[in-house]
Formats: sequence, structure tokens, C-alpha cells
Amino acid sequence: MNEVRIGVIGTGVMGTDHARKLAGGIPGARLTAVQDFAADRASALAQELGVLAIAEADALIADAEVDAVLVCSPDGTHAALGLKAIAAGKPVLIEKPVAAERGEVEALMRAEMAAGRKLVQVGYMRRFDPGYAEMRRVVASAEVGSPLFMHCQHRNESSPSYLTSELIIANSAGHEFDAARFVLGEEIVAATVISPPEPRHAPGRQPQFIVLQSASGTVVDIEVYTDARYGYDVQAELVCEEGTVRLRPGPPTSLRHAARDGLVVPPDWRARFADAYRLQFESWVRSIVTGQSNEGSTAWDGYMTLLVTEACLKAWSTGNRIAVEQPERPAFYQG
Amino acid sequence: MNEVRIGVIGTGVMGTDHARKLAGGIPGARLTAVQDFAADRASALAQELGVLAIAEADALIADAEVDAVLVCSPDGTHAALGLKAIAAGKPVLIEKPVAAERGEVEALMRAEMAAGRKLVQVGYMRRFDPGYAEMRRVVASAEVGSPLFMHCQHRNESSPSYLTSELIIANSAGHEFDAARFVLGEEIVAATVISPPEPRHAPGRQPQFIVLQSASGTVVDIEVYTDARYGYDVQAELVCEEGTVRLRPGPPTSLRHAARDGLVVPPDWRARFADAYRLQFESWVRSIVTGQSNEGSTAWDGYMTLLVTEACLKAWSTGNRIAVEQPERPAFYQG
Amino acid sequence: MNEVRIGVIGTGVMGTDHARKLAGGIPGARLTAVQDFAADRASALAQELGVLAIAEADALIADAEVDAVLVCSPDGTHAALGLKAIAAGKPVLIEKPVAAERGEVEALMRAEMAAGRKLVQVGYMRRFDPGYAEMRRVVASAEVGSPLFMHCQHRNESSPSYLTSELIIANSAGHEFDAARFVLGEEIVAATVISPPEPRHAPGRQPQFIVLQSASGTVVDIEVYTDARYGYDVQAELVCEEGTVRLRPGPPTSLRHAARDGLVVPPDWRARFADAYRLQFESWVRSIVTGQSNEGSTAWDGYMTLLVTEACLKAWSTGNRIAVEQPERPAFYQG
Amino acid sequence: MNEVRIGVIGTGVMGTDHARKLAGGIPGARLTAVQDFAADRASALAQELGVLAIAEADALIADAEVDAVLVCSPDGTHAALGLKAIAAGKPVLIEKPVAAERGEVEALMRAEMAAGRKLVQVGYMRRFDPGYAEMRRVVASAEVGSPLFMHCQHRNESSPSYLTSELIIANSAGHEFDAARFVLGEEIVAATVISPPEPRHAPGRQPQFIVLQSASGTVVDIEVYTDARYGYDVQAELVCEEGTVRLRPGPPTSLRHAARDGLVVPPDWRARFADAYRLQFESWVRSIVTGQSNEGSTAWDGYMTLLVTEACLKAWSTGNRIAVEQPERPAFYQG
Repeated sequence: MNEVRIGVIGTGVMGTDHARKLAGGIPGARLTAVQDFAADRASALAQELGVLAIAEADALIADAEVDAVLVCSPDGTHAALGLKAIAAGKPVLIEKPVAAERGEVEALMRAEMAAGRKLVQVGYMRRFDPGYAEMRRVVASAEVGSPLFMHCQHRNESSPSYLTSELIIANSAGHEFDAARFVLGEEIVAATVISPPEPRHAPGRQPQFIVLQSASGTVVDIEVYTDARYGYDVQAELVCEEGTVRLRPGPPTSLRHAARDGLVVPPDWRARFADAYRLQFESWVRSIVTGQSNEGSTAWDGYMTLLVTEACLKAWSTGNRIAVEQPERPAFYQG
Repeated sequence: MNEVRIGVIGTGVMGTDHARKLAGGIPGARLTAVQDFAADRASALAQELGVLAIAEADALIADAEVDAVLVCSPDGTHAALGLKAIAAGKPVLIEKPVAAERGEVEALMRAEMAAGRKLVQVGYMRRFDPGYAEMRRVVASAEVGSPLFMHCQHRNESSPSYLTSELIIANSAGHEFDAARFVLGEEIVAATVISPPEPRHAPGRQPQFIVLQSASGTVVDIEVYTDARYGYDVQAELVCEEGTVRLRPGPPTSLRHAARDGLVVPPDWRARFADAYRLQFESWVRSIVTGQSNEGSTAWDGYMTLLVTEACLKAWSTGNRIAVEQPERPAFYQG
Repeated sequence: MNEVRIGVIGTGVMGTDHARKLAGGIPGARLTAVQDFAADRASALAQELGVLAIAEADALIADAEVDAVLVCSPDGTHAALGLKAIAAGKPVLIEKPVAAERGEVEALMRAEMAAGRKLVQVGYMRRFDPGYAEMRRVVASAEVGSPLFMHCQHRNESSPSYLTSELIIANSAGHEFDAARFVLGEEIVAATVISPPEPRHAPGRQPQFIVLQSASGTVVDIEVYTDARYGYDVQAELVCEEGTVRLRPGPPTSLRHAARDGLVVPPDWRARFADAYRLQFESWVRSIVTGQSNEGSTAWDGYMTLLVTEACLKAWSTGNRIAVEQPERPAFYQG
Repeated sequence: MNEVRIGVIGTGVMGTDHARKLAGGIPGARLTAVQDFAADRASALAQELGVLAIAEADALIADAEVDAVLVCSPDGTHAALGLKAIAAGKPVLIEKPVAAERGEVEALMRAEMAAGRKLVQVGYMRRFDPGYAEMRRVVASAEVGSPLFMHCQHRNESSPSYLTSELIIANSAGHEFDAARFVLGEEIVAATVISPPEPRHAPGRQPQFIVLQSASGTVVDIEVYTDARYGYDVQAELVCEEGTVRLRPGPPTSLRHAARDGLVVPPDWRARFADAYRLQFESWVRSIVTGQSNEGSTAWDGYMTLLVTEACLKAWSTGNRIAVEQPERPAFYQG
């Protein structure tokens, strides 16, 4: 197996985390270059990790030492950079969301289809979380029957002030939409949104309650509460005809101390999804080496998640149940 | 403290359970008489417990040895029997639902108000379950902030064949409606219903997903699945601004056996709510003796639960979000 | 069923709790009198509960309004008061320990045998805790095989300064000894004691680790830590040939708040064993009315627990494994 | 960072697992050769993984394509192969136990000290399990005070017929001895052993209950039950002055099905300790590349675990509490 040489575009919090992980932590992968619009930030990280700092994203994509590209730059640049990677014939893993506009994802899919092979993976890492993977396995095996409900809760400890009620739907909820499609193995066809009051400590944005329905009728309800104070907490219970599967929180120990018996809740997603990120990278690298597709989100998955998001936004602004558009799935993205 | 002498109308499964509990198990209470339309059934129970079997419900209500009446007869008879107890000036605990028609409850409230004291309690025993009581306490104390969401799941192992999709809303969900009103301490103002597919082993009825919203905006979602196979399971998580409270299942032990580590799930509600039933009876008896009101459901609570039910049925048949009628609350039922 | 009229001797913390519970909270029971060496304390409680305050314990035992006696006075008086109750032919429930000296319990047993019926119950209330009762049922049914191990932990939040390393064995561990005998259904035959260091915040007394072995070889290990700071916590896991049963903590809800997800640990035993105390009283009253024996500790049980205690104290002072004396069990106490 | 080329000696169940993991799954490592006394078995695995099959262990150790050696051969060969690896100046990871005889480990330590650098790591992988690592961190930080107790349970689903009561102490318990030393950060000084009866389905061997005490007095009790039927289960609770830390079982989901709510218990250690094995290999490879020591067991650790084992065997055969020999720790193995 040859080593896959990876370049990282965007060295903010997440890009830096990822770059460090790729620098020696993923078998078969080698980090070779980093780039950021803030050149100093990229240089410092490059020096720390002993890799190249490249000034321009285009140059990084084109670099002969770069076999594959990880895009962690601001959301608005994702699709354009993905297109360039496709043009260079290089596999690209794009942090979610793959694009802000549906036209951008359509362009991405057209380019990828024209290239004749799947080059795009979208960074919905929960697909590699052992808990979601087990839920998907249970659905696929039908060992406790078909799914009827999927109850999801997504809570952040706190959120930046620019986050609005709308962005909670447009951005924070995206992981849940992709996870539901992944676990259920089918498309979402309708969306309803109901908003509880604003919490006093986070005025100006409402938590959201989103109810989706899948093609075969499974009801998926999603609480998104981005200011939950007590910590980062992602829960899900899949209810099938004859049994239910529930995610368990991850800490390897429980603590009895100070009149409490239980778990420490982490402040953010890093500890909770550390395994998922690692397994996502391992799977991505393996798929590049073997040329075989993996469980990761494709451009099509990114597209359908965007259409679900659009329906939710409309459901939210109108108060109505909104159908999710169902474009025909190209054969290229079947199976 | 004088003993309260109780007569039980209806000796089906639940009435029989209740009668046995009242025959020596509730301090300050004494069972004195039972009645059932199936006279044999009542006689056998009366003999077992050493009490009177009375042929007619009216006679039981009128009996000098009966201070208070417990109504466990078929649903359709509840309101009429309640009216008779009020007419006799005797406290009456009516199994839920208090009535099938709103006019019946209105008549009950009018009679009770005319009598000048609260004589009716509706048997929503979850109000006496220590878990729901703790949730209510947390809301009232605001110690983790105001409520934003309440997620509820209600699952039965299996259900009789007469149960329809409509009855799941009209009957099975009632406990959840009352519990939400009790925990949140305010009225429900709107309802949405979304139905997943019928499970293959229970064709002809769909599980239901009901989303309510309370006066101050709290979103209450309720899964009702009456054919869950694995057992009887009632869950709830109350999400407040700064923390959440979740019901824990009741078994006093966990078991590791046969490749499983966890709890035995009971087949029905009796073990799960044994304490709630006992505490409900104790509280009822105490309120009779002291003349002070308790946490139990009043006729007004039964009425509002009926209006929520009506809104849910309309939401289900139309697919729309339906406002719950909000009649003015009589001063008699304030506080 | 006639009412059992109960007199309580000793109105300290526990006696007061018990008296309040008996005053209207236990079906079939009526509190009629209280007594304490501090007459004021008894009078105040008597007034609160509307019962007689009797100045002398002897007079209470003799009182015509007292059918049965609950002894909650200081430990050193237990056995003598028990003897007087037997002499008066009245059932007596004695808080643990039944006596400090084996001669006292022997006298109690002789008196009881002479009286020809079991009048003494010792207040090891864990026998009525649903968790321990389930463990006993599992052993008796052999449904997961025979017991091999029983792991027990007993932790108090803090303890009074008079508690010594010796008293931790002589007094705090007693509940565990009785519980092990109850669950396993056989005698303890040997004891080993190993002491960890004194915690810095409770100098002068060591926690204790006691290893018992039952007649058929089951190993019972008991941690007793009386200054655990985080709260009151009693755990047990019974390991049988094919499975294990573990006590679950009792709270009806769990809480996610302030970076923790789990249970609130209570500061003392009252919440943890509230049900056990209630069920113990109900069972005692029922056994008085019906004349049938119950699951409660007999004088024999109190005696054997005392012999286990003596062996533990010797094991502790010598560092050796010590055999527990096994006197012949009188036929009176069989079965 | 250069790649570490690894040769595996012994391709039984565990060696095969390890070889597959090293063949591409550990960053910075490359599997280059395998060897087994059953040449066919080695050849088949070599072919599967695309590496060399080498007929003799000596040749593998000497091979120029092998930078480091993993010893998974039968226990009796561990020490001799370790010595040869030291002689060749190659780092060697030896599956536990490092040796059967203390003289062998002494020879290994002498050789390693003569070589002037630590070349031996013993495969007690629990040191890399996130749960044990957290326990060690809690002890080292003293954030809930000093340790008083450590309660450990080690259960296998079933065991091969050659396993005897003696081997349960000599072999199965070894992981617990090393884990206790690792978590507590100090030596074990005394041992007591008490044996419950043989389970009926595994006659001829008794489960064991081992009580150790550490240098500062912490009591460590260990249940070893190798025929627990319900699955593989390793538990531990560390009790410190002000709080306790408990291992949580690992599954990422819980299941409600067939009247049970809880976790699936795995049949063996592979799923439970998959992360620990991976992290152990990663840490070993990193320590080879950087030349810095890691958290892994050293030859000294293997030696002290052997002395604890010897004391336990003597405690078991005599029924007495036995002191563990405390040889002086060479400066080479300090810190």
C-alpha cells in the first residue's frame, strides 16, 4: 500500500485538529502541506508539523506532493475548492456543509460525474461513529424489525453570537439530517418545524424542533438546542417494530463525587466524536488506496441534506409541513 | 383520623387490582363494597375480600357504608356515575378518561361547582409517580431554568385488536397529555400529529407522533406505540434552559445474564406504576379526611385533557396544526 | 382485621421518624403512645401526633392501649426492653443491634421460646428493600445458578466523631451481615478483615474491608467506608454461576446539569430505604394480625449477626481468618 | 518519522489478530515478517498479509527487515525470545506473562540493563485502555483524594479445560495485578486468597477471590471467575477519600428488546479491549521512533507482577496472608 499524501486547506480550529491527526496518526496517510488565508497561521502549523506551508489553495491542490485534499476553509469556499480538486483529479474530503447553494452542489456532481469517478466525500463524520454505524446495521439487518421512529437530540454547551434561529436549522441541524438518511438508508420527504421560546441566556435565537418523515414513513424528530449550558450532548433512539437502539454516551468511566453519581459531560464535540473523525480519515485513505467506495457522505448525500435544509427553512418560516424535493438520483450515485 | 369507607364500581382487571389494594393496603381507608355489571365477578371478589357485593351502581353510591366511590367501570359510564356521586355528596375518584364527550365533563363541573366543593378526582396516577413529581418540582423551582422541551415515549407490549389509530390518540395518549400539563403547570394550546407506518405485526393501527405546544411555548413531543413487543416502557425527558431531567426505569436490580446486561422490562404498567397508584390512593384518602385539595387531576384537568384530545384528533385527520380551545377557567378551579 | 396499636420507646432521630410514619401511614396500625428518657422530647412528639406520652418504658409496655412495641432507644437498652415486652406477651420490633452482648440475646431467645411464639423482630429493614428481596429470590430460585460471590459496599457521607475503627465493624457493618445471611439463606462461617489507611479528613478510624464465607462457600466481601463525602451509597452485586444481580440506586429521575449527567446521591439512608422501612412496618403489622411469620430478622438472626460481628472483631485485632461459632439452631427458629 | 518494521513471532489466535492489526492499521508501523512453529499457519498468514514467512524465530529476530519484534508464542518461550531480541538490540513487545520463572525475568532485566536502554515492553494492554488510564490520572492528580479501595472483577464467558484453580491465579489474574500497580502507582505488598465453590458447569476449578494490599495500604480485591457464562466482563471501581471512579462497559449503543433493556455483553476480550490494543501498538511504535519511554509495562513491571503471583499462589495453598517480596528497584527502572 502506498502512502497517501494529504494537503489541508484551512487551518482554523477544525483544520488544525485534523492536520495534527493526519500528521502521523492515520495509517497510510502522510500530511505534506497546509494552507490558510491567514498565512502566518498556516506557517506556524507547517513548522510544528514539519510540512510545507503553501500560500494559495490553488497551488496546494496542484502541488505534486499532494495526492488528496482536505477542505476545512470557510463554508462559502467549499464547493469552489471541491471543483478545483475534481479538475485536478484529486480526491477531496470537504467539511460539511458541502455548499451553501444547491447550484454549487449540482455543479460539483456534474464535474464528478464527468470525471467518471467519485472524488468527493463530505465530512459528516457521524457515519463512522460506532453508535450510528450500529443503528444503521440494525436497520439494514431488520433484526428488530423496520424503523418507526428516530428521536434525536443535539445540544451544544453554548454558541457564538452570530448564530441565529435560521442558522440553527441551516447549519447546526445538518449532522442530524445526514445521520437520519444514513441510519434509515432512505430519503427524507417532508419536514415540519416548531420552535420553543428563546432561552433567557441566549436571546435572539430559538432552539428548534424539527420533525422529518422518510420515504417509507419513519418519523424523525430532532431537537437542536445550541445553548444547553451543561455541555455537548448528542443522543438518539431508533425505535423499530420490535425493539429500540439508543446511543450511549462515551466516557470510559463514571464518577461519584460531590453528591452526584454519573458521567462528566464534555464541553464540545471533540472528545465525543474523536473516534468518528479518526475512523473517517482511515476509511477515506483506504478508499483512496483501494479505489473502493466507503460509507462516507457523497456529493449526492450533501445535495439531499441541502434540500432537506431548504424544506426545513421553509417549514419554519411558513409554519407548514413542507415536502422535500426529490430529484432523480443519477445512476452514478446509486448503490 | 376517621376511616374512609370506599365502594368500588367496576371489577374488571383494574377495578379488581384497586379493590385488593384498598382492602387493607391504604392507611385510613377501608373497602366496604364492590359492584359490577357482571354480578358473579363482583360477588367472587367481595367474598375474597370480605366486603359487600352490591348489585347496582346507584345502590352502591347511596349505601350508608360507603363514604367515597371509586369508578372503574367502562369508559362510557364514567361521567354519569360521577354525577350521581356528586349528587350524593360523596367524593369520587374516576378512572381516566373522565368522559368521552365534552358536554359530559361540563355537566360534571357544573354539578361540582353547584355542590360548592371539589368532589371529583380523575385517576391520572402519574401525578403521584415520584419521577413526574420531581419533574414538576424542577419546573416550579426553576432550578435549571424554564422548560423548552418535553420528550415523551409511551410504549405498550401489545394491545387488544379493537384499538385503532384513532383510539391511540383518543385513549392511550391521555396519560401523556395530563402528565405534560401537570409537569409544565400550564395549558396546551396547539397540536400536530404525524403518523409513521403500521408495524407489520399490528396491522390496522399506526403508532402516533404528537407534538403539542404549551401556552408559554414549550414543545412537548409524544411517541405512542402500543405494540412495542419488548415490554411496557414509559420515558420522558424534560429539557430546561440549563439542564434536563429524565425518568429512570424502576426495577430495583439489574441483571447480567445470557449475553445481556441491564434491566428486565415489565410486560405492563402495574409494576411500573405500583407506587403511583398507592400514593394516589393515599393522597385521595388524605384529601377526603382533611378536606384539602391534593395534586390529583380535577374535573377541569379532565376537561382540558379532553380538549387536547379533540385537537389531536382533528390534527390527525387534517394533517394540520390545530389550536386547542381555551375556555375560561372558572375561579372554582383556580390555584 | 383489627388495628394494631403501637407504642414507640425512644424518640431520637430514628424513633421520631418511625413514630411519624406509624401515625397514619401504615395500614392496620395506629400509634398510641411514645416514651423517651428525655420526657420533653416525647411530650412534644406526642402532642404533634395526638398520642399519649408515657414517662416510663415499663409503663408503655404495660399500657392497655399498646398492643405492640417498637424499641428505638439507645442500643444498650434494646435487649432488656425486649425481655419486658416478651414478659408482657407483646410483639416487639427492636432496632438493630438487638443486643451488645451475646448473653443478652440468648436470654431473649430463651424467653421467646418459653413464651411459645415469636414475639421479637429485629429492625434489619433491608430484608424489605425490593432490591435485596429480589437477590434473595434469585438465590432461592437458582434461576441463574448458585451464588459464588456477593460484593457489598456501604458508604456514609460522614460520621460522628465517636465512631471508631472498631465500631465500624461492631455497628456499621451489621446491616451487611444480616443482608448477606438473608440473601444467601445460610450462615456465615468465617471472617477476615483488612483495613486500608485512615482518610485524612476522618483521622482516628479506618474504613474496613471484611471478607466472609458462607456455609456452602460463597465469598461475601464488604467495604465499609463511613466518611465517603459524596453521599450515602449502598451497593451490592450477587454473582451466581450463570449471571449476576446488582442493586440499582433508587432516584426516580436522572439529571444533566453543570457538566454532569447522572443521579443525585442522597446524604443519608432515609430516602434510600424509605420503601424498606414502610414495607417492614407493613409486614410486621400484618404478621401480628395474622400470627404468621414474615421475612423479618428474628432473635436468632440477631444472634448470628452478633456472632459474625464477634468473629470480625477478632479477625481485625489478630489479622487472622476467624471461624464464626455455629451454635445449634433451635427447632423453634427453624424454617 | 521513519517506519518501524515489525516481525511477529507466534501466529496463534492473538498473534494473528495482532499481525493483521499491524499490517496497515498502526501509523508508522509496517509488518514485514511472521513466524510460527507451525510453519503452514505462518505461511498462510504471510500470504494473506503480503509479508515474509520466516521459519525460525531466531532468523526473524535477526532479519534485516525487522526493526522490532512482537512475541506472541507460547508462554514458556517468552523470556528466551526476549533475551535474543535484546541481544540483537531490537525493541521487543512480549505478550504477558513475560516469564514463568522469576530467574528468567531477572536475566531479562540484567540483559536490558547491560544493553543500556529499555528494549522490553510487556503486553499488559489495559494500561492503554482509556478507563484504566483515567483511574490512574485520578489517583495521580489526587483530585478526589487518595485511594482506599480498588474493587476488580474479571469474568470470562468460559475457559479451556486445562485451566485449573492454580492457573486462574497464575495466569488469568495477571492483568489485574498489573492494572492495580499501574492505577495505584505503587507496589503490592501482601496477598490473601479465598476460594468460593466450583461452579457445577466447570468442575475442577474454583473461581478465586484475591485481596491485595499496596505499600500505602490501599486494599485491592479481585474476583476472577473464568466461567461466567453470560460473557466477558471486566469491571473496576476505585474508591478514593472523596469520590469513586468506575469503569463503564464499552458498547456504543444499548438495546431494548425481548423484555430486556441494556447492553449486549461480548463473548471475549477483543471488542472490550480493541482500543487498548491499538493504543498500545501506537504507543510502542512511537516510543521506538522517539526513543522515549511510554506508559507500557517494563520488565520490572513484569517482574513485580510475577512476585505478586507467587505470593498469591502461596496464600492460596496455605490459607494465610502472604507478604510480597520487595526487591530493591534498580535505578534503571526508576521514574
